[in-house]
Amino acid sequence: MKLFQVDTLATARQKLLAAMEEMGKKALPQENIPFSEAAGRILAKDFRAPEPLPAFARATVDGYAVRAVDTQGAGESLPVFLTIVDEVHIGEAAATAIGPGECAYVPTGGMLPPGADAMVMIEHSELFDATHVALYQAVAYGRDVVFPGEDVRQGDLVLPAGSRLEFGALGALAALGLTTVPVWQPLRLSIISTGDELVPAECKPNCGQIRDINTYALRALAERAGFFVVRTRVLQDEEPLLREALQEAMHDSDIIAVSGGSSQGKKDMTGRLMDEVASPGLFTHGLALKPGKPTILAKDIASGTLLVGLPGHPAAALMVFHLLLVWLWETLCGVAPQLPLTAELETNLPAAPGRLTCQPVMLIEKDGKLLARPVLGKSALITTVARADGYLIIEGEREGLPQGALVQVYRW
Amino acid sequence: MKLFQVDTLATARQKLLAAMEEMGKKALPQENIPFSEAAGRILAKDFRAPEPLPAFARATVDGYAVRAVDTQGAGESLPVFLTIVDEVHIGEAAATAIGPGECAYVPTGGMLPPGADAMVMIEHSELFDATHVALYQAVAYGRDVVFPGEDVRQGDLVLPAGSRLEFGALGALAALGLTTVPVWQPLRLSIISTGDELVPAECKPNCGQIRDINTYALRALAERAGFFVVRTRVLQDEEPLLREALQEAMHDSDIIAVSGGSSQGKKDMTGRLMDEVASPGLFTHGLALKPGKPTILAKDIASGTLLVGLPGHPAAALMVFHLLLVWLWETLCGVAPQLPLTAELETNLPAAPGRLTCQPVMLIEKDGKLLARPVLGKSALITTVARADGYLIIEGEREGLPQGALVQVYRW
Repeated sequence: MKLFQVDTLATARQKLLAAMEEMGKKALPQENIPFSEAAGRILAKDFRAPEPLPAFARATVDGYAVRAVDTQGAGESLPVFLTIVDEVHIGEAAATAIGPGECAYVPTGGMLPPGADAMVMIEHSELFDATHVALYQAVAYGRDVVFPGEDVRQGDLVLPAGSRLEFGALGALAALGLTTVPVWQPLRLSIISTGDELVPAECKPNCGQIRDINTYALRALAERAGFFVVRTRVLQDEEPLLREALQEAMHDSDIIAVSGGSSQGKKDMTGRLMDEVASPGLFTHGLALKPGKPTILAKDIASGTLLVGLPGHPAAALMVFHLLLVWLWETLCGVAPQLPLTAELETNLPAAPGRLTCQPVMLIEKDGKLLARPVLGKSALITTVARADGYLIIEGEREGLPQGALVQVYRW
Repeated sequence: MKLFQVDTLATARQKLLAAMEEMGKKALPQENIPFSEAAGRILAKDFRAPEPLPAFARATVDGYAVRAVDTQGAGESLPVFLTIVDEVHIGEAAATAIGPGECAYVPTGGMLPPGADAMVMIEHSELFDATHVALYQAVAYGRDVVFPGEDVRQGDLVLPAGSRLEFGALGALAALGLTTVPVWQPLRLSIISTGDELVPAECKPNCGQIRDINTYALRALAERAGFFVVRTRVLQDEEPLLREALQEAMHDSDIIAVSGGSSQGKKDMTGRLMDEVASPGLFTHGLALKPGKPTILAKDIASGTLLVGLPGHPAAALMVFHLLLVWLWETLCGVAPQLPLTAELETNLPAAPGRLTCQPVMLIEKDGKLLARPVLGKSALITTVARADGYLIIEGEREGLPQGALVQVYRW
């Protein structure tokens, strides 16, 4: 058995980026999609405002559009009298300019006429006759008006590339008429779960068998992040089956994630097959990460495929997928790194010296403080993941953290 | 003009719940869906484990399954010799029981034979002959074994009703074979945006017009939360159009959200029409909330429809939709309330005394601290929402908060 050095998480990430670059995939392809389908997708280009927003001065109250200077001195007992030269209808251009001593009626959302620079609310007015109004309030320049460009100026950066298009962003796109949206094309992912003990979730396992978890949970995690899952397969741990599956997936996938093969012999088989079908093959032979040590990485330049051997245990497979592949996708898309939450550790927490420890935690609130409660349990357990809100990372040089330590929690 | 008392947010929420109860909709209908379509849905029933997980004792390493007591005294220089009575294959039942002085080879993930209670890793063993092995390590009971029920015991509560089915939860469902999942049926929502100034996002507005934002942004917010959006409509502010639209939507919607009608006359029209088409009609005539004062609520018992008049300004409409309708949906589904994040206020923040103030904020990290930066701007602006990560709430009796105050931020 050859002995290989394991990589740190940081090294493995750099190697993944380098591999994508080598395969010409560091710049992901973009696609233009109708904006009605863009929710949750990631913007591929900076979006600058093609026009100012609003495009014209808008009233935010019902009342009279005035030149603010004309209202100076007005008060509850001493109105100013202005001449009404127009009534603006909402949705229409305000045609008549306001001169000194003049005003126009404008409803909420309506356009201010040229010359007007403030609004006096209708509550502070009294009609004197058909063309004259008494205003009982002095208003400052800009009062109850949104000026052109006050929301966004023309050319302003509205959304940077890498923005995930949630409802607020979609509202901004709608406001500015960007109804075809450039987004990153999803990375195509094949998920293969191997193991002679596995049966699909809908089957009743015999004694010694278990239901497959990884294809289902990895698919949900991957799709939520933005991957396109080409296929999932559950395979017996046999060399010809896995070889054929890898070769098939290399035709149409950017990434193949193989989980399982947890016994030493089977782990060696997965690595050997990846090295066989892919050229130049393996470039990471393990991670200095708990859980996640048996992770292996390979690349096939010709087909442009990244091959990732994940641990077989669900909690470990999901953690490594999140730390490596979701990270890779979001990095290539330019998504801003997640802001971790600071929480207080509820209990002492041991760690594995010499490697990074990722510990699933629940977040709970107690006496107004955010506490991180480690969800302890072997990585073979799925409930560890189901119950956790996220994880914290303990650096390799530390032996653990004491109760009460402030930790940074990443949600998943 | 009749004067009505405005409701507090808490009162309006209680009235919404009461209205749903009155309409027989407090208990939402459930539906059973294939678990492959369940990602993001909300579980409608407590899910208790129908069987223990794992169902049998599993090895987490390659090695020899032993009775721990038989290894006592073993060490690097002094092995114990055990008789190999079986080799367990992964995925198969371990048939041969282990007696005193006996062991069986078991690969990672394989089943421990009856009688065995610990594993000795293969690294600490040496084959003596075909049926005898030397073990160089003393192991404690349970070492490198997952016992039946250690992940979940039969009958354990795996996921409570109200759980959102993310990848970890889906993994747990797969592990336990729940491939048909009881989830809440989405509330059916119609979204109507009214205003003579509105044009659809794909149109170029004339002077005085603006593109509609609310149908797009509200749809994205609603769908993310779990609503089924029956339709969205953009209408001119005309009484017959809105009346017809309300009556149409009452046939097939649980909730109708009407935004717009921002001028006083139009606001009155929306309320008047809701009171006309719905019986008993309006039950909330405004909210003591900034922004969100012009919010109105009505109900029609016969059709079982809730009618909600939202403010016309996008930031206010989205905020009120989130605070009232997303809240209502998640409360009916039994979703655990969101845990707010504690952050330090970056600047002084004024508030409206006498009513609740909801302030959009960005979350930023500075010197290891989480800061909440108010995104200031009139509620007519959409970029306020697009740039914010969430919001904080200032109680009505406070006049504002000083820089540095600890605030609770809710993400949206």
